[in-house]
Amino acid sequence: MSDTREQILEQIKVQGDLVRQLKATKESKEKIDEEVSRLLALKAKLGGDATPANQKFTLKTPKGTRDYAPQQMTLRQGVLDKIVQVFKRHGGEAIDTPVFELKEVLTGKYGEDSKLIYDLKDQGGEILSMRYDLTVPLARYLAMNKISSIKRYHIAKVYRRDNPAMTRGRYREFYQCDFDIAGTYDPMLADAECVKIVAEVLDTLDIGDYVIKLNHRQLLDGMFEACGVPANNFRAICSAVDKLDKSPWADVRKEMVDEKGLDGATADKIGEYVRLSGGAELVEQLLADEKLKAVPNAVKGLEGMQLLLKYCSLFGLEERISFDLSLARGLDYYTGVIYEGVLKAEPSAPASPAKELHNGDQALEQSSTVGSVAGGGRYDNLVGMFDPRGKAVPCVGVSIGVERIFSVLEAKFAASKVKLRTNDVEVYVASAHKGLHEQRLRVLNQLWNAGIKAEHSYKLNPKLLVQLQHCEEHQIPLAIILGDAELAQGIVKLREVTTRQESNVNLADLPNEIRRRLQK
Amino acid sequence: MSDTREQILEQIKVQGDLVRQLKATKESKEKIDEEVSRLLALKAKLGGDATPANQKFTLKTPKGTRDYAPQQMTLRQGVLDKIVQVFKRHGGEAIDTPVFELKEVLTGKYGEDSKLIYDLKDQGGEILSMRYDLTVPLARYLAMNKISSIKRYHIAKVYRRDNPAMTRGRYREFYQCDFDIAGTYDPMLADAECVKIVAEVLDTLDIGDYVIKLNHRQLLDGMFEACGVPANNFRAICSAVDKLDKSPWADVRKEMVDEKGLDGATADKIGEYVRLSGGAELVEQLLADEKLKAVPNAVKGLEGMQLLLKYCSLFGLEERISFDLSLARGLDYYTGVIYEGVLKAEPSAPASPAKELHNGDQALEQSSTVGSVAGGGRYDNLVGMFDPRGKAVPCVGVSIGVERIFSVLEAKFAASKVKLRTNDVEVYVASAHKGLHEQRLRVLNQLWNAGIKAEHSYKLNPKLLVQLQHCEEHQIPLAIILGDAELAQGIVKLREVTTRQESNVNLADLPNEIRRRLQK
Repeated sequence: MSDTREQILEQIKVQGDLVRQLKATKESKEKIDEEVSRLLALKAKLGGDATPANQKFTLKTPKGTRDYAPQQMTLRQGVLDKIVQVFKRHGGEAIDTPVFELKEVLTGKYGEDSKLIYDLKDQGGEILSMRYDLTVPLARYLAMNKISSIKRYHIAKVYRRDNPAMTRGRYREFYQCDFDIAGTYDPMLADAECVKIVAEVLDTLDIGDYVIKLNHRQLLDGMFEACGVPANNFRAICSAVDKLDKSPWADVRKEMVDEKGLDGATADKIGEYVRLSGGAELVEQLLADEKLKAVPNAVKGLEGMQLLLKYCSLFGLEERISFDLSLARGLDYYTGVIYEGVLKAEPSAPASPAKELHNGDQALEQSSTVGSVAGGGRYDNLVGMFDPRGKAVPCVGVSIGVERIFSVLEAKFAASKVKLRTNDVEVYVASAHKGLHEQRLRVLNQLWNAGIKAEHSYKLNPKLLVQLQHCEEHQIPLAIILGDAELAQGIVKLREVTTRQESNVNLADLPNEIRRRLQK
Repeated sequence: MSDTREQILEQIKVQGDLVRQLKATKESKEKIDEEVSRLLALKAKLGGDATPANQKFTLKTPKGTRDYAPQQMTLRQGVLDKIVQVFKRHGGEAIDTPVFELKEVLTGKYGEDSKLIYDLKDQGGEILSMRYDLTVPLARYLAMNKISSIKRYHIAKVYRRDNPAMTRGRYREFYQCDFDIAGTYDPMLADAECVKIVAEVLDTLDIGDYVIKLNHRQLLDGMFEACGVPANNFRAICSAVDKLDKSPWADVRKEMVDEKGLDGATADKIGEYVRLSGGAELVEQLLADEKLKAVPNAVKGLEGMQLLLKYCSLFGLEERISFDLSLARGLDYYTGVIYEGVLKAEPSAPASPAKELHNGDQALEQSSTVGSVAGGGRYDNLVGMFDPRGKAVPCVGVSIGVERIFSVLEAKFAASKVKLRTNDVEVYVASAHKGLHEQRLRVLNQLWNAGIKAEHSYKLNPKLLVQLQHCEEHQIPLAIILGDAELAQGIVKLREVTTRQESNVNLADLPNEIRRRLQK
C-alpha cells in the first residue's frame, strides 16, 4: 500500500504490456484472465474511475471451471445419453448423493491426493468437503443404508483442486460417469462385465481406437514383495509406478530411489516386470516365474488375471485388452483387478509438439494426447470402513472420464465446421405484415397445446425477411407465415425453410399437417 | 471436559433415552440423527471402545441434504424429462455453469437472504461461494460472453443454508429448473410466454389444481408511494408483504410498524390494497383509483398488467391466473412482472394439523401444505450489474421448484403402493443347472451387442428358483433359461415372466425374437 501513484501507474503499464503480449501470442484464456485480473487489481489501487463503478473484479468462472454454452451442452448431452444407454443395458439403476459430504467421510480415502479436496467454511458446526469422486459417496451410501448389493450408475460433477489443463479436458470441476457392482459374487464375473462396459462405451462414442489395460493389485503387491520392497512401502511404490503412463522409467526409478528410499537393485527388478504387457501367454509365463511363484499374493493375482482374460474373451474383447504390468492406478482403495481405457494416438493426427505449436491447432493436440478416458477396479474394503461393525460389501466399478471425451469431440466438431443445432424448434410463426401479433399468439397456443415445438419473434411488428433469416440461421425446418388475406379465409402459409416451398394450410389442420411434414 | 466418567455415563443414559423416545414416536430422521450424533459424541468422550474403531462419526449426509435412492431417481428423472420437454417446446437451449462462483458475483444480489450463502474456504486466493440460484450465474454468463439475447434453460442444484423442512420438500441442496428469455423485446410478449410455461409444466406433471398469481413490481412500488412509504423503505416493506402467503396480515403489519418503522396509518392503507385479487376488472378498478392514478409507477404497472392479462387470455390461461396484490416475491432483483404457481389444497386431503398429527400421515400434510411450486419475474437490471459499461440485457424467467413437486409425487406414490421399476432390464439370462456360466456369458454378449438390456446372477451356479424369483421381484419381462439338452440342439427356453409361458427359440434368432416379444 506504500506504493506511490507513479509507481502504480508504472506497474499498470508493465502489466498492460504483458497482457497485450499474451493476447498476441494467443496464450491460454486462463493465463490471460489471470494477468488481466492482476491488471485490474492494480487499477483498483488507483481508486478513481480506472475500473467501472459497478464491477470491481474480473468477470470469470473460478479457476479450473468453465461454463457450458448451448453447443457444448448439446454435445455433452449426446455423450451422456449414450453412456446411460450402456449402463442401463447392464441393468444399472441411478442414485444421487449431495455435492458435499461431511469431511470425515472423505478423510483417509485418497492417499497422497487428499490435499486436492475442496473444503467449505464451517457451516454451523458441520465441516463439509466437496466430493472428490463418486466412489466414496457410494460406499458411504451403501453402509449408511445397509445395502449389500446394487448395480448403480451415478453421473455427476466432482471436485479436485488439481492443476487445471483445460485444453486437454482436465478441470477442477468435472463430470464423472460411474457404474459399480456391489455384492458378494463369484470371482471375476462382475469384474469382466465392467471391462465390457468400458468397451461398449468407447465403441458407442466412436472416438477412435483404444486399448483397455488390465492389471491386478494383488499381483502388483506380490511382485513388489518378490522384488524385495518392504510391505509398508507398497502403496508409495505403487503410486510411483502409476506415473509410468506420463514419465519414462528413468524418472520413475529416480522417484523410487531418491524420494521413496528404495534400494536401486530392487527398483531395477521392478523395472524388469513393469515393462511387460501381453495376453494369456504372459500370465502363463509369469506363473512359471521363479520369483513370483514363491509369493502367494502374486500367484492369486495371476490366477485372477487368467480368469478375467477368459471371461473377457467370451465377451469378444480379446483384441481390445492388454494385460499390462505398468498399470497401477493412483487411488489407495483398490484391492483387486484394475483397468484403464486409453485412446490410441490417431495416425492422422501426429503428436509432434513442434507441429502443434507451429500450426496452433488445438484439435490435433487434444486428440493425440488425451490418453486415459476410463478407469476403475475392485475395492472390497471401502464400504467396510464406514460400517460400525466393519461389515464389508465387495465392489467393482468403472468411471468414464467424460470431460476428456468432450474435449476430443469438441475438437472434432470444431474441425468439421458443422453447426450443431442447439434447440429443437420445429416451427417458427411469422407475420407477413404489421398488426398480427395477437394472431401469432393464438396460433402458437394451438401448436404448443398440440405438443409442437414453436417460437416467434418477441416483437410486435418484426420484418418478414428478418424472421425468415432467423429460421435459416437456426435450421428451423418449418415456418408459418400469417397474413390478413389468408387469415380471412381461415388459412395460413406453411413454408419449408430449406426448399423455400410454400403451400396453404387450413388453420384447423395445422398441427396434423406439421406432424406429417416433420415425419418426412 | 471436566465432567467425571460418572457424569458422562449419566448423560449418555439420558441422551440414549431421548433417542429411543424419538424413535418410538417416529420423529423425523433428521431430528433423530441429530440426537444420535450427540449420543455418539458423549460416548466418544469416554475414550474407550464405546464407539467402533473404524468410524468415529455418525454416518449421515450434511444437514438439509439427502441421497436419492433408485426409486426416487426414477421419479425425479420422470419429472425433469417432462419439464425439459416443455422448455424445448418453447425453443429453450441448455447451458450449465460451475456449482460455485467467485463470491463477488453473488454479493449484493439477494438482499436479506445473502446470509444463507455457503462459502468455501479460501482456495489459493480465490474466495468462492456455492450458487444460490441459477439466475445470477445466468446474468454473469451473459455479461461475460456479451450475449444480448438467448432463450436458455438450466437444470441444476443450488445451495441455501436455510432451515430445512425436509418433509415439505425444503432442502439446503435442491434442484432448480429455470427457463429465461433474455433480450430487448416488445412489452409482455416474453413475460406472458413464461406464465404459459408455468401452466404447461404444472399441467403435464398432473400434481393437482393450481393457480398462477401475478403482480408487478412497478405497481407495488407505485402503491407503496401512493400509501406514503418512503422510497428507501420500498424493498424492506416489499419483503414484509412477501410473507403474506405464510403469515396473517396482523403479523405482517406488526413487522412493518415495529421492525421497519412504518407509520401505522400507512400500513393500514397498504393492508387495503394487498387483500385485493382478481382479473382484468380489478385492473380497471385500480386504474380508476384516485390515489394510484396520481403515481406514474402505479399507472405503468397497471397498464403492464392489462397487457399481460390480455396475452395470457390469448394463451388460454384465463381460468388459471389471478392478479394478486399480495404477491411480492422475496428477491431484490425483480423490476417488472412477478408470478408464482401455487398448488391448491386438495379437497380430499384436509389440512387440519390435528388430523395430520393424529393419523401420522405425512402424505396428507405434504400435498396440502406444499404451496408455491414455481415462481419468477422480470429482472431488467441484473446483467447490467456485471457489465463493465453497465450495458443492460432485459430478462424475464421462471424457476420450477421441483423438490416440492418431488415430495408431492413421492407421497402420492407411497400412498398408491405401486412399485416403480428402477432399472430397464428386458431379459434375465438364467442357468437351469450347474456348469453353465460360460454359456451364460456368451448369450449375454450376444444380447448386449444387439442392444438388448440383459443381466444374470454373478454366481457360477445359482439356483433356478432364485433366478426366476429375481425376475418376478424386479418385474423383468423375459427370462432365457439355458440347459445342456437344449444347447446341444442350438436352442434355449424363452420364458415370459408374468405368464410363466415358455417356448424354445433358436440361439441365432434370439435377439429378433426378444425384440418381437418386447414390442407386444
